[in-house]
Amino acid sequence: MDEREYFQRLESTAETPSDLFEHFETRTHAGWTYHALPSAHHDIERGTVIIPDADVVVRGYPSVPRVLVLDPGIESVFGEEAVAVEEKLDGFNVRIADLPGEASESLAFTRGGYVCPYTTGRARDRLDLSAFFADHPEKALCAELVGPETPYTSHDYDDVDSHEFRVFDVRDRASGDPLSVERRRDLCARYGFEQPRLFGRYEPSDAVEAVRKRIDRLDDAEREGVVLKSTDGTAMVKYTTESQHHAELAYAFSLPFDYGRDFVFSRVVREAFQAAEFDDSSERLRERAHSLGESILLPMVETIDDVSAGEAVGERQTVRGPSDEVDALFDHLREQSLTLDVESDRRENGERVVEFLKVSEATHDRIQYYLGGGTRDE
Amino acid sequence: MDEREYFQRLESTAETPSDLFEHFETRTHAGWTYHALPSAHHDIERGTVIIPDADVVVRGYPSVPRVLVLDPGIESVFGEEAVAVEEKLDGFNVRIADLPGEASESLAFTRGGYVCPYTTGRARDRLDLSAFFADHPEKALCAELVGPETPYTSHDYDDVDSHEFRVFDVRDRASGDPLSVERRRDLCARYGFEQPRLFGRYEPSDAVEAVRKRIDRLDDAEREGVVLKSTDGTAMVKYTTESQHHAELAYAFSLPFDYGRDFVFSRVVREAFQAAEFDDSSERLRERAHSLGESILLPMVETIDDVSAGEAVGERQTVRGPSDEVDALFDHLREQSLTLDVESDRRENGERVVEFLKVSEATHDRIQYYLGGGTRDE
Repeated sequence: MDEREYFQRLESTAETPSDLFEHFETRTHAGWTYHALPSAHHDIERGTVIIPDADVVVRGYPSVPRVLVLDPGIESVFGEEAVAVEEKLDGFNVRIADLPGEASESLAFTRGGYVCPYTTGRARDRLDLSAFFADHPEKALCAELVGPETPYTSHDYDDVDSHEFRVFDVRDRASGDPLSVERRRDLCARYGFEQPRLFGRYEPSDAVEAVRKRIDRLDDAEREGVVLKSTDGTAMVKYTTESQHHAELAYAFSLPFDYGRDFVFSRVVREAFQAAEFDDSSERLRERAHSLGESILLPMVETIDDVSAGEAVGERQTVRGPSDEVDALFDHLREQSLTLDVESDRRENGERVVEFLKVSEATHDRIQYYLGGGTRDE
Repeated sequence: MDEREYFQRLESTAETPSDLFEHFETRTHAGWTYHALPSAHHDIERGTVIIPDADVVVRGYPSVPRVLVLDPGIESVFGEEAVAVEEKLDGFNVRIADLPGEASESLAFTRGGYVCPYTTGRARDRLDLSAFFADHPEKALCAELVGPETPYTSHDYDDVDSHEFRVFDVRDRASGDPLSVERRRDLCARYGFEQPRLFGRYEPSDAVEAVRKRIDRLDDAEREGVVLKSTDGTAMVKYTTESQHHAELAYAFSLPFDYGRDFVFSRVVREAFQAAEFDDSSERLRERAHSLGESILLPMVETIDDVSAGEAVGERQTVRGPSDEVDALFDHLREQSLTLDVESDRRENGERVVEFLKVSEATHDRIQYYLGGGTRDE
């Protein structure tokens, strides 16, 4: 690719093209060669992708900052601006972009800038992409793949039986500029794309109380949280529920030597600031502490017991779709050095349904070592 | 110093003297220049000290490994060997060595290889060092400074009002070779040095049950745990109580942005393996989880509340001793870039008693930033 040209188009803060492009990795998918940035560098977002043969740049989705207290967190981010409050969903975040020219087709890119063949197939199946991209070829749809039957996450939502997309943002693929919240929601509605719920638009002075009440209700329903956006879509901040923090800890400590260390401190920090702001009785605080402790300890003890009983441990996932898409997914996952253990593989209503375990060797081997009397030097 | 000579005496695995000595730091104390190794390198223990003008080497105290399960942990470390089980105390670990020649005097070295002037003074006051070192000039006494009135730790022991030493090991200062458990205990008794309790000597087949019962009792008394040693003193392993894990977490999360991240994962790991081995009912497991959660969350919320109320946060310590030793301690701590906030400074029975706060700016500033609405990018 012509590094000099793409360097100018990206408007990075790097001094020279090679300072930036040394961080890109080259990958291929279905005959396309693309260059992806696996982590943010020089003001270019993680997951930014360049496909020279299609003359396309897809900017990575920006990292969404988090406030630890609503008051004065919301005001410090948005000042006097009104904010739109939408639901944050626990799913698999992809950008879907269309490649122009004769070979026109849409691809779903992960946060890290990989084409996911399974999510690409599901997006083409579930979303009317051709209608949308015929009118808006330069846009990228930013969507969460949610539901119990996805290869990456498995948060249950009452209204999603298998898997579905929720489009939470529409951006210019080359610049990353978002649409305003109102225009984006109208546009998605017009093309029949389902969206996260919009809870309301608030003046900053009212937003704290509104978000706090909403978080309480989402917490009761064991849902993730909210994203607040300035009405023009440019400023964003997220805030999450106690049940989400605990669910994430439970997940991480079911595979402690894969995720525990990275997950635990940041979730405890969220919990403590939320408790300091919300919990007005020592009884409520103690209840939260007990739930926190259970979410850390119980899954880990269960995993130790599993290893002790000779069982494999890992993340159990289910996927549903055409057989070739499922095969492509497994190839894709194995390319990323994952070990897969297929537990069931059947057909249901003309679709293939596979239950599999992403085997966590780090956790299994570490636990086996300690259970065998191995010592730990700290 | 003659690097070549000390290189040979240390018997390091480094290829050249400079490979090893580049890791040493040069420090001074009371006219002595000494070289200390702040972290383990090339098979030389952290805290190893060389004092060329006294022609003395004091090896660092070896890191004591930990087993996460008693069965088969004890057997995997000791095989068929009998083990001595002694109490592990929560104190400040120093090596006390004598400098030969006309300027003969004893110094107390910390784990990191610093001379602590306060601990040195306290050791000279509380232990009959001249009698011991007259007979055993080449030995180092390895001791814990325990009690509520020390500058570094503050675990309460019923039988210690202010601060006292417990000698838990006697080693050749140059080689680091230990005495056998029996000989060491006899020797300490002869010179009137108090020691950690010896709970018994066990064949490996009986040790698991004996240690488990002992740990239960220590846990009830909120004491730290045990160290197991081969009777010749060379092989060692440690094992700690639930109450100690929780106390350490509570301490770490009272200063979360100083210690929380480093402390939390390893303590949770200890807890989970202990629970998997000990806790036979789901009720007992849940109780442990609740206590774990409280030890993490409650101290952190309290610290957030303190910062919110405009208070300084940090570690509160008390020291007692002659005025010049206390001054020397404060100089020593300030040299290590600690900010001290003296809260009370009085005389009691001819001694100076100072209560002070080691101010934790990292925790204070980080909490203040988030309470002011600062965002977190994860």
